[in-house]
Amino acid sequence: MRNIGIGIVGGGYMGKAHSVAMASVGAVFGTSLRPKLEMIAATTPESAERYRATYGFARCTADWRVLVNDPLIEAVVIAAPQELHREIALAAFALGKPVLCEKPLGASLADATAMTEAAEASGVTNMVGFNYIRTPASQYARHLVASGEIGRVVWFRGEHTEDFDADATKPASWRNFGMANGTMGDLSPHMVNAALALIGPIQSLVADIETVHPTRPGPTGPVAVTNDDQAQFLCRFTGGAMGHLSFSRVATGRKMGYAYEITGTTGAIRFDQEDQNALWLYKSEGPAAQRGFRKILTGPDHPDYLPFCQGPGHGTGYQDQIIIEAHDFLTAIATGKPVWPTFRDGLSVMQVIDAAHRSHSTRQWVTL
Amino acid sequence: MRNIGIGIVGGGYMGKAHSVAMASVGAVFGTSLRPKLEMIAATTPESAERYRATYGFARCTADWRVLVNDPLIEAVVIAAPQELHREIALAAFALGKPVLCEKPLGASLADATAMTEAAEASGVTNMVGFNYIRTPASQYARHLVASGEIGRVVWFRGEHTEDFDADATKPASWRNFGMANGTMGDLSPHMVNAALALIGPIQSLVADIETVHPTRPGPTGPVAVTNDDQAQFLCRFTGGAMGHLSFSRVATGRKMGYAYEITGTTGAIRFDQEDQNALWLYKSEGPAAQRGFRKILTGPDHPDYLPFCQGPGHGTGYQDQIIIEAHDFLTAIATGKPVWPTFRDGLSVMQVIDAAHRSHSTRQWVTL
Amino acid sequence: MRNIGIGIVGGGYMGKAHSVAMASVGAVFGTSLRPKLEMIAATTPESAERYRATYGFARCTADWRVLVNDPLIEAVVIAAPQELHREIALAAFALGKPVLCEKPLGASLADATAMTEAAEASGVTNMVGFNYIRTPASQYARHLVASGEIGRVVWFRGEHTEDFDADATKPASWRNFGMANGTMGDLSPHMVNAALALIGPIQSLVADIETVHPTRPGPTGPVAVTNDDQAQFLCRFTGGAMGHLSFSRVATGRKMGYAYEITGTTGAIRFDQEDQNALWLYKSEGPAAQRGFRKILTGPDHPDYLPFCQGPGHGTGYQDQIIIEAHDFLTAIATGKPVWPTFRDGLSVMQVIDAAHRSHSTRQWVTL
Amino acid sequence: MRNIGIGIVGGGYMGKAHSVAMASVGAVFGTSLRPKLEMIAATTPESAERYRATYGFARCTADWRVLVNDPLIEAVVIAAPQELHREIALAAFALGKPVLCEKPLGASLADATAMTEAAEASGVTNMVGFNYIRTPASQYARHLVASGEIGRVVWFRGEHTEDFDADATKPASWRNFGMANGTMGDLSPHMVNAALALIGPIQSLVADIETVHPTRPGPTGPVAVTNDDQAQFLCRFTGGAMGHLSFSRVATGRKMGYAYEITGTTGAIRFDQEDQNALWLYKSEGPAAQRGFRKILTGPDHPDYLPFCQGPGHGTGYQDQIIIEAHDFLTAIATGKPVWPTFRDGLSVMQVIDAAHRSHSTRQWVTL
Repeated sequence: MRNIGIGIVGGGYMGKAHSVAMASVGAVFGTSLRPKLEMIAATTPESAERYRATYGFARCTADWRVLVNDPLIEAVVIAAPQELHREIALAAFALGKPVLCEKPLGASLADATAMTEAAEASGVTNMVGFNYIRTPASQYARHLVASGEIGRVVWFRGEHTEDFDADATKPASWRNFGMANGTMGDLSPHMVNAALALIGPIQSLVADIETVHPTRPGPTGPVAVTNDDQAQFLCRFTGGAMGHLSFSRVATGRKMGYAYEITGTTGAIRFDQEDQNALWLYKSEGPAAQRGFRKILTGPDHPDYLPFCQGPGHGTGYQDQIIIEAHDFLTAIATGKPVWPTFRDGLSVMQVIDAAHRSHSTRQWVTL
Repeated sequence: MRNIGIGIVGGGYMGKAHSVAMASVGAVFGTSLRPKLEMIAATTPESAERYRATYGFARCTADWRVLVNDPLIEAVVIAAPQELHREIALAAFALGKPVLCEKPLGASLADATAMTEAAEASGVTNMVGFNYIRTPASQYARHLVASGEIGRVVWFRGEHTEDFDADATKPASWRNFGMANGTMGDLSPHMVNAALALIGPIQSLVADIETVHPTRPGPTGPVAVTNDDQAQFLCRFTGGAMGHLSFSRVATGRKMGYAYEITGTTGAIRFDQEDQNALWLYKSEGPAAQRGFRKILTGPDHPDYLPFCQGPGHGTGYQDQIIIEAHDFLTAIATGKPVWPTFRDGLSVMQVIDAAHRSHSTRQWVTL
Repeated sequence: MRNIGIGIVGGGYMGKAHSVAMASVGAVFGTSLRPKLEMIAATTPESAERYRATYGFARCTADWRVLVNDPLIEAVVIAAPQELHREIALAAFALGKPVLCEKPLGASLADATAMTEAAEASGVTNMVGFNYIRTPASQYARHLVASGEIGRVVWFRGEHTEDFDADATKPASWRNFGMANGTMGDLSPHMVNAALALIGPIQSLVADIETVHPTRPGPTGPVAVTNDDQAQFLCRFTGGAMGHLSFSRVATGRKMGYAYEITGTTGAIRFDQEDQNALWLYKSEGPAAQRGFRKILTGPDHPDYLPFCQGPGHGTGYQDQIIIEAHDFLTAIATGKPVWPTFRDGLSVMQVIDAAHRSHSTRQWVTL
Repeated sequence: MRNIGIGIVGGGYMGKAHSVAMASVGAVFGTSLRPKLEMIAATTPESAERYRATYGFARCTADWRVLVNDPLIEAVVIAAPQELHREIALAAFALGKPVLCEKPLGASLADATAMTEAAEASGVTNMVGFNYIRTPASQYARHLVASGEIGRVVWFRGEHTEDFDADATKPASWRNFGMANGTMGDLSPHMVNAALALIGPIQSLVADIETVHPTRPGPTGPVAVTNDDQAQFLCRFTGGAMGHLSFSRVATGRKMGYAYEITGTTGAIRFDQEDQNALWLYKSEGPAAQRGFRKILTGPDHPDYLPFCQGPGHGTGYQDQIIIEAHDFLTAIATGKPVWPTFRDGLSVMQVIDAAHRSHSTRQWVTL
């Protein structure tokens, strides 16, 4: 057991989540590497100091370069705006420092490509923060599909739907500007990653993307929204399955609609993040009169549940997903073994998103 | 109150359902027209006699023309194979007899067009048997959308999914041959009709259609399946909503997956025929802490429930949908008032299905 | 196949349900005995004629004795007020006519006892109308328990809860007077019957019974409610299982809360009439990671579903339960074979209810 | 912001949970008191050292007295066997040190009484670890009831059911011996506490308690189980509501069945810990046709959710409940303000449990 100096760039929503995760992961998982909250970087000295004190870091900085270059920083977590991902990651890799980067991997396909190349050239641990796929339920779903428990997959439907922008009278925010902050840029990566992880590569798709509320109240009158509110695409996976993915920030009533259904030739799976501690499984076996979707409550028999609680059905939550992520990141650093998802996986996600944009623009099927 | 002589062509699945409905509707709804089960037609004298005796008809025939021409027959229900719909309907309309025809309206778009023209020329009551939309829950959903209770509709997702052909080792049956018997021909009409009724006309779509199990066991070896197992399309409605519809007979675990979700700007609706006595409604009103999808159990406050039971939550079932249909049919005949859905509505459904086939063939978006 | 002349005493809620059932059962089940709606009796000539015309009976009467004595009446359905059950039933049995009597069997334990003795002395078919236990789901639940699929039963919890009297400002009605119309008298019989059918006889119990709203608005001011709004009891079954039953007409939000859960040593069952087409089954078998309550949708593989529909998950409703009842009644008459539940079974239910009243009065455990 | 030295007695299931909570609570809630994991006590030097290293404590001991007496220990968390609670708590209070004690408060009513007296005499913060009531959903349920949102409560049903001992062939463990480890001793306190918190004091009850599997396999043959497997009681609350509580460790299929339903005169609430991020609320308001239980997903609008996540529906889990507990404990220490639940509350729970045992022994209603 030894300490590892952690630097986190960004102290907002995800910066806090990673800070808490790094403070907890050692006790939860009994890791061999023990994170030391060495330094946090934010945009101003004041906010940096506030995050430092609140989250319990030893030091702070308003210059992420100071953090990356600090000799006590042995691993970097990027929870900064997407536009900065590339520069920070490249700096860290240049120094041979492992990186855990929030999704989406980069602000553009070009950024993501460059980051992936740098990551692979460096040879150090690189990982993207797709936290939702870390629940014991979704991890187990992956296992069920991969082990053939539901036969050959013929259908996948996934969605990531929320309603934080459903109200047309809500004033415009940073979320309403720039492709990276729209539904495709911000919400779709989680579910595209899930689709690729659960089913495999996507071969072709045809997409439709829409801005439902084209203007929103601004400080001095209506302002034009420059990104999308909802989107969807049909696809075929390389393995042959037919698929549908949809994304929305105007899905009234949906709070955390990260949900999917997988149909196989001998079984089926259903999952909805709004009830993240349950996985629904149907198997075409046993008497017909006794078949039905069963609601499996996650427990110690499912991946990564036991460290949180010995009792089944007691439940894990959002923060726990980030702790699982931290565990995998630390384990990869400690052992040198592969981690998932890598920057390469994050790049694959962005390639699908890019194809969807192209399909929408051309109103054509696009082959990846 | 007076009797009306009913003739039903076909004594199988739907022929039975309509026979029971005609025997019950008077007592259930207290209709002014009282169906007299005058004659049933089937393919052979033996089967016709068996149906007559079992369902309680006065007479029977193995020739549907005899039935249509019989002077005591005042209204005709067509529950025969799709290939016969056109000829029977035209014969009835020629005699000025009202027709209730099972879905899909015709075996082809040409048939459906001819039937609609004949129906409208005759001026008599004409109606298509889309029974699922008759549940009190779905009728109430239509009311909610039409009255603006959920604001402007921005998203519709509908599916009709079952799993009767999920097992690849199941021997081929009549269902596996002919476009009219595939998923698009046989299952999609119900949900396309629901989409049109709930949201309005479809403007454009892009579809993907697939035969998942291309061969099935036949009497002397594998035989080729000639129609589709699953299908889906993206669409835009004329009113602006984005939509997705999917259909499957290989949806392992799904028994009666006639389900839809409707997102409006101020509310949302969810429905699944597998729990047909519940309608889920979300409204963006009241304290945020108290918002959520509410599970409304159908009861006397919802359309056409009360005649079946005075107590809410006591539930209606499949057969009751056909009784409601019979009630509407008889009421239209008695009053001369419009009925829904007419042959024109059934034709609109077939136009959408035709467009989907064209889209699939050309791999292009199709405008209706 | 031959006709049987049916007489129904009562044309209200249940009288209508039985009329519709008798009009439908032949076509639905293809019964050998075909009900002929011969005569209906009501309290006045006017109401009797109205029921006759609406439900399609040949004749009517304002004197139930005329109906019972009519030579064309071969079987009697009692859907009259409880106070009349005894006299009508005894008259019918005296003439050797089979009787289907609505629940509760009698207005008092004495009535029920006399009726049961008369029924058994007559030797003809006698049956009590506990319709809810007739759903395919509950019939299958009985089968599962009886065949040992969930092991030895150790726990049963049942409730029959509705909310039609939850509103304290609702004016008093006939339901608020007389023990037979209170929660224990009117609602509990269904669930007590279910408990006895599913688990077996009750050995001992301790009860608590309450009038939540002691007065209600009357025509000229508050009137005193003379029966109970909610009640519950703990019990032990003869077979050893521990049990709890509760009943309420003030269960805000509950519309048809006929619900039970059964725990066995190797499995468990859950059912709620508000979703009457689903049965939840848990089995302690297979990998622990894949165990969960499965939601079984009723279908052709479950008792008495197939005559209503060939497709699973398409659903049966309230009226269908009465049709199933009619089928069993007719079959027993036609074959002379035993039917369930008999008057003896109805008497057992009333003995439990009587014991609960005694327990409440004495605040003691009561042994049956 | 200042540090506070925390000592935890016990390193097992709950000792770990409290350790993780103390490591996280500062960053999660931004507390003014920052826990320093000063010392952990276990039964042997080896286990103590193992816990110390794993959970990140500065020091450890195999003698809890060393921990309590250590000058750097400013607050004590008791996660040791129940038999030790009294002695440890009294030692801490004697030194004026705040105590957070796991449930049940004491191994006996006498212990709990002595502990409560000592706590109140000391005047320092004292708290019992009823974690399940800490979920945002249950906290909000308390708020709804207390603020009259569902009117006057007329019915409460609560259960705490699990199935870890459902299998009769499972070898005997420490859980099968001693009243404090049976269902009443170990599981009931959580739900009794919930009942008291949600509804108020219990006035009278009648209970039934049972050992379903009287023997279990031991190392050399069957051994007698000396405590209970399931139990239930009827009760009346001081405020007039009728109640039922049940507890089981043999509830096949139930994993975390901490569930309750509350019926008020104008609304109702339902909750099940197996889906801890949802609260079901029914309100008798608005059009009858639109009423139904709504599924509220917890979010930033519900108590103590926001510190874990800014997005609604993202979910909290088991560990988060302990963090909320830690937050309340630290806040009370920092501010001197009252905390809930105190030792007095824990004592009230034990008085109810004691009354249930007496009722079972005497087969009588017992008044508290």
